[in-house]
Amino acid sequence: MRVGIVGATGYGGAELIRILQSHPKFEIAALYTSSRQGRDIHNHYPHLTGIIPLTLEEIDPIKMAKDTDVVFLAVPTGIASQLAPELLTAGCVVIDLTGDFRLKNTEDYEYWYKRKAAPKEWIEKAVYSLPELNRTSVKGSQFISNPGCYPTAALLGLAPLAKANILKEGSVIIDAKSGISGAGQTVSLGNIYSELNENLKIYKVNGHQHIPEIEQMLKEMGYESPITFQTHLVPMTRGIMTTIYGTVEGKITEDELWQLYHDFYANEYFVRVRDKGIFPATKEVAASNFCDIGIACDERTGRITIVSVIDNLMKGAAGQAVQNANILFGFEESAGLKFSPMYP
Amino acid sequence: MRVGIVGATGYGGAELIRILQSHPKFEIAALYTSSRQGRDIHNHYPHLTGIIPLTLEEIDPIKMAKDTDVVFLAVPTGIASQLAPELLTAGCVVIDLTGDFRLKNTEDYEYWYKRKAAPKEWIEKAVYSLPELNRTSVKGSQFISNPGCYPTAALLGLAPLAKANILKEGSVIIDAKSGISGAGQTVSLGNIYSELNENLKIYKVNGHQHIPEIEQMLKEMGYESPITFQTHLVPMTRGIMTTIYGTVEGKITEDELWQLYHDFYANEYFVRVRDKGIFPATKEVAASNFCDIGIACDERTGRITIVSVIDNLMKGAAGQAVQNANILFGFEESAGLKFSPMYP
Amino acid sequence: MRVGIVGATGYGGAELIRILQSHPKFEIAALYTSSRQGRDIHNHYPHLTGIIPLTLEEIDPIKMAKDTDVVFLAVPTGIASQLAPELLTAGCVVIDLTGDFRLKNTEDYEYWYKRKAAPKEWIEKAVYSLPELNRTSVKGSQFISNPGCYPTAALLGLAPLAKANILKEGSVIIDAKSGISGAGQTVSLGNIYSELNENLKIYKVNGHQHIPEIEQMLKEMGYESPITFQTHLVPMTRGIMTTIYGTVEGKITEDELWQLYHDFYANEYFVRVRDKGIFPATKEVAASNFCDIGIACDERTGRITIVSVIDNLMKGAAGQAVQNANILFGFEESAGLKFSPMYP
Amino acid sequence: MRVGIVGATGYGGAELIRILQSHPKFEIAALYTSSRQGRDIHNHYPHLTGIIPLTLEEIDPIKMAKDTDVVFLAVPTGIASQLAPELLTAGCVVIDLTGDFRLKNTEDYEYWYKRKAAPKEWIEKAVYSLPELNRTSVKGSQFISNPGCYPTAALLGLAPLAKANILKEGSVIIDAKSGISGAGQTVSLGNIYSELNENLKIYKVNGHQHIPEIEQMLKEMGYESPITFQTHLVPMTRGIMTTIYGTVEGKITEDELWQLYHDFYANEYFVRVRDKGIFPATKEVAASNFCDIGIACDERTGRITIVSVIDNLMKGAAGQAVQNANILFGFEESAGLKFSPMYP
Repeated sequence: MRVGIVGATGYGGAELIRILQSHPKFEIAALYTSSRQGRDIHNHYPHLTGIIPLTLEEIDPIKMAKDTDVVFLAVPTGIASQLAPELLTAGCVVIDLTGDFRLKNTEDYEYWYKRKAAPKEWIEKAVYSLPELNRTSVKGSQFISNPGCYPTAALLGLAPLAKANILKEGSVIIDAKSGISGAGQTVSLGNIYSELNENLKIYKVNGHQHIPEIEQMLKEMGYESPITFQTHLVPMTRGIMTTIYGTVEGKITEDELWQLYHDFYANEYFVRVRDKGIFPATKEVAASNFCDIGIACDERTGRITIVSVIDNLMKGAAGQAVQNANILFGFEESAGLKFSPMYP
Repeated sequence: MRVGIVGATGYGGAELIRILQSHPKFEIAALYTSSRQGRDIHNHYPHLTGIIPLTLEEIDPIKMAKDTDVVFLAVPTGIASQLAPELLTAGCVVIDLTGDFRLKNTEDYEYWYKRKAAPKEWIEKAVYSLPELNRTSVKGSQFISNPGCYPTAALLGLAPLAKANILKEGSVIIDAKSGISGAGQTVSLGNIYSELNENLKIYKVNGHQHIPEIEQMLKEMGYESPITFQTHLVPMTRGIMTTIYGTVEGKITEDELWQLYHDFYANEYFVRVRDKGIFPATKEVAASNFCDIGIACDERTGRITIVSVIDNLMKGAAGQAVQNANILFGFEESAGLKFSPMYP
Repeated sequence: MRVGIVGATGYGGAELIRILQSHPKFEIAALYTSSRQGRDIHNHYPHLTGIIPLTLEEIDPIKMAKDTDVVFLAVPTGIASQLAPELLTAGCVVIDLTGDFRLKNTEDYEYWYKRKAAPKEWIEKAVYSLPELNRTSVKGSQFISNPGCYPTAALLGLAPLAKANILKEGSVIIDAKSGISGAGQTVSLGNIYSELNENLKIYKVNGHQHIPEIEQMLKEMGYESPITFQTHLVPMTRGIMTTIYGTVEGKITEDELWQLYHDFYANEYFVRVRDKGIFPATKEVAASNFCDIGIACDERTGRITIVSVIDNLMKGAAGQAVQNANILFGFEESAGLKFSPMYP
Repeated sequence: MRVGIVGATGYGGAELIRILQSHPKFEIAALYTSSRQGRDIHNHYPHLTGIIPLTLEEIDPIKMAKDTDVVFLAVPTGIASQLAPELLTAGCVVIDLTGDFRLKNTEDYEYWYKRKAAPKEWIEKAVYSLPELNRTSVKGSQFISNPGCYPTAALLGLAPLAKANILKEGSVIIDAKSGISGAGQTVSLGNIYSELNENLKIYKVNGHQHIPEIEQMLKEMGYESPITFQTHLVPMTRGIMTTIYGTVEGKITEDELWQLYHDFYANEYFVRVRDKGIFPATKEVAASNFCDIGIACDERTGRITIVSVIDNLMKGAAGQAVQNANILFGFEESAGLKFSPMYP
């Protein structure tokens, strides 16, 4: 299968290249860019020297439909809302890594993203797929909307409780922490090394655009209340941890809680539930497509704590996009994604 | 005033030396050690070369009472429970930086610290002082118990709400994040660079020994429930952030909330409440004795988020200990502590 | 081919597992340990959960010879000198990642390593193989000695000049910088996070044990003088850079120098010579088996500067060991090693 | 003495504020900016909240001459060449932290800095002062040119050998490593966190603008040859290490070498020569004005290695500027600068 990557010079693009260049079923056919056409990819990313001798091409939907079997959109949020419809109209199969088609409600998009939403008819065509929770409608569809990084970690952490319908309404608080690569190659004072190194920051307090995405999915699973969700920048390049707090209706023991999670993810290759009393660290999933989960139940307070970790560029972006592509084309879901985390 | 430091080779000791060597009222008279006597301090800490030409001395309570006006105990927790009584009996004035005399209830100590508590009669003599909350009983006392790093950040963040008696019982969750220096010079696999760098960990889930210290103080301020308190290790050397979640009885606007905090700390030099919509980062207090606080109230959920940051070795340990020493001897509370944070 | 790994709990072992678990020709048959037998590998390394469900076995040469086709020794230096002969005697094929069999001269070993050398007869049997420089004798041999991390970077940087026989005797200075993972899981004060983070150290000044290894190979290539070689610890987990200074006999232009390097490595997959004026950074080879090289010639001083970078755990250890194993068994040299560097 | 700081929003400016706000002789009278006038400094630098309640003022030479006794120029290189003459003409006393007046030869400046040099007559008026080497002409002068960060470390490392006139011509190689804060708040792709973290880079190969500054001073001390000088970016915020290689005419033992350095700096508060066999790390001078030096002589090669470390923002910029200001006004040279390094 021939793959095209739009936005190849971003970190999501780099990660797609890293995965796909050794994928057994996909072949990188072309890299696309809106601004750097004609440049060799290894001039922007010297680490790709000798690995993928491609030149960045301009975006031309008709040509792209001919040259590729699937196109990954790894562009900044806001760009896809216009570009995806053009590509789809031209006949491309599109997997969109941006936030532009995740929210079914355009008002939510415009409130949280503070920009104009994509056309409603196209939003309706997009299949939002966090495979472990809703992979069924992916196969054979033309247009996949890939989940956000924080929502992936948070929703995989919450799903067993939400789907069991035992989460007490109003009890969910998600304290999320991310490495810096989530900000991509944004050139701004807030993104420079000396401002972030040896520093821990909270940002977008009560205002992160991933809130409505998490709430939309929770609602589908039966949890109706708005959530509290705060995000922090941790001085490391990769990794997301969500520390999730909640309370259940009735009582649950730590054993029962663990069994619930264990059973829920028993057949999922990419979700690993730690043993009782053991909690995952972000490095234990670095460079891989895993989401690792630890659970605790505090008898003193009756409160549950769920810890989930992912590599934000992998399960939180490029890895999950390839997982969706595998499903879409009927390949083994973990094809090309079974490599081990890198440790240390 | 002549100062003695026990445990000078630890990070708390190093920080006490850094502060006290330029303090206008105190002079470092002697450094004590249980294991390295006879060694020059600059052999352990080359950064002190030429700054403080002292040799580590053995611990001898009688001699220490003669040679010093005040002794700082910057030893590992568990050591002070025996050592402090010996020093006090010999006549020393003691400021203890360990956790050994913070909990009034010895059962709590033995449950959370998993070791034998100090003798009850000595615990009763210790004055626990987080100055902004209870400085009154410090002046002229012989024995100060200096607060823990996490409790300092958490309690300064919660005090205005707790003392106003509007915190809804059972609502408090504290998600705490710390730099690695909190672990001191502990030589263990879990403390080595390659395990911690580019990694984010949760640890002591529902089991951190600072929980009862925070609860003890909250109870004094009128909040009775057990708290949820989780701690994370962030790949940086210094800094603590506590992200505190809670709900109030009745309603409060963000303006009212801000006014409450602003008024509460209006006369405190070391607590800086940020303007509405602005939140502190840990680096903004690095190397200083400040605790910076940001507040938010989410209309969607009714939940309050408080962010407080400190330098764990300063306001969280050595800086606050010197602040207590200043109060004890009737000096200006900020004497020797007014230096600016170091940025970047 | 069935592989056994001795010392699987070290970082070299972890990296061997990462590579070999997705290698097309090798299969990890067993993990061996001298101290943790009976423990599941994922209890030591949670990142391997679900990837390699093996239990650590005790070292038993007879059994190992039956159960494996090749054994990698990723043990601390000093252990292999006794263990390798036992394994070889039992019939194992051995690839040794330690320094114990690299130096042909046992006096050199004992002077620089400050320990007893391996038996001379076994040293003579060991084939030292840095494939790009001397791969010929590897195929079919029973015992490979894998090069050190620094020597790999330094020798690949120097080889084109040394083999061209134009290096001025006495001119070579190598200023080497390494990430911390080179120290492995050593539990010592010098290896803890707070001592190394935000810090840059020089160590083993004029005394690093890799000096004689570099000199031995340089001598084979025609450069006879002792070298100056200093090593620094950089606050990052992975990566080595050697900045190499030298002078040539006669004159050479930057163009000629570049051509020399380009031609020398024209057919080497794992060595990438950057274009003129471009220099590699360590991250551009992270997690990969590449060695990237940049060259400069300063007209003002006549001095040449060569910059070479590797991932110390890959081309500097496990990656190169697998490369050697590929050669040994007649597989494609890059089999299982063609993955892209991880960036960022 | 009333101090004005131009460029207060840069890192050099922030460090000047940190030092001067607790200096016994200077008082910060005004902060100047070319672009942010009217803004409170604590809005740009929240860490200064409550410490220095000043508003950024526009640059007005006549007014500045009235309002200040000395002006520090902590602006980007290239700005001072025009600004300093205006301020001097208006009657200001100026300490310039930029590179604009360091090189006596304007052709050198234009070649290395790739911009137009300052007017020759003003360059001649500037007193270049690295106090430990040439403090005599500073006192009472109107215009000080403060050395660069790399030259400070390199020249303090080389001076004892150069002034003893025993350095072999052509033998000096300086391998320099710097933390990232040297790049200031430059907003560029090359300065963002994810590009620099876990990465080690060489930059400006054979082209760094500090080369002619070092050579100019070495020439004054008797060493005539061009030097080899390479610079690297290390993933940490602060700190410079220069590893200096050289050869002496005749022979020298390590004892003699050490004695030479020890005697040379015997009366210098800010230069600390380590004992034989001990080498400084950058963290041992962090946040302080010290330059620490270690020396080694290798009998195998006859080559000398000198290691010098500074905090690039302190002894490499703001600290040394204040040291120069102290000399200029006849204060104790270490006034306001005697604080301990911050460790860890």
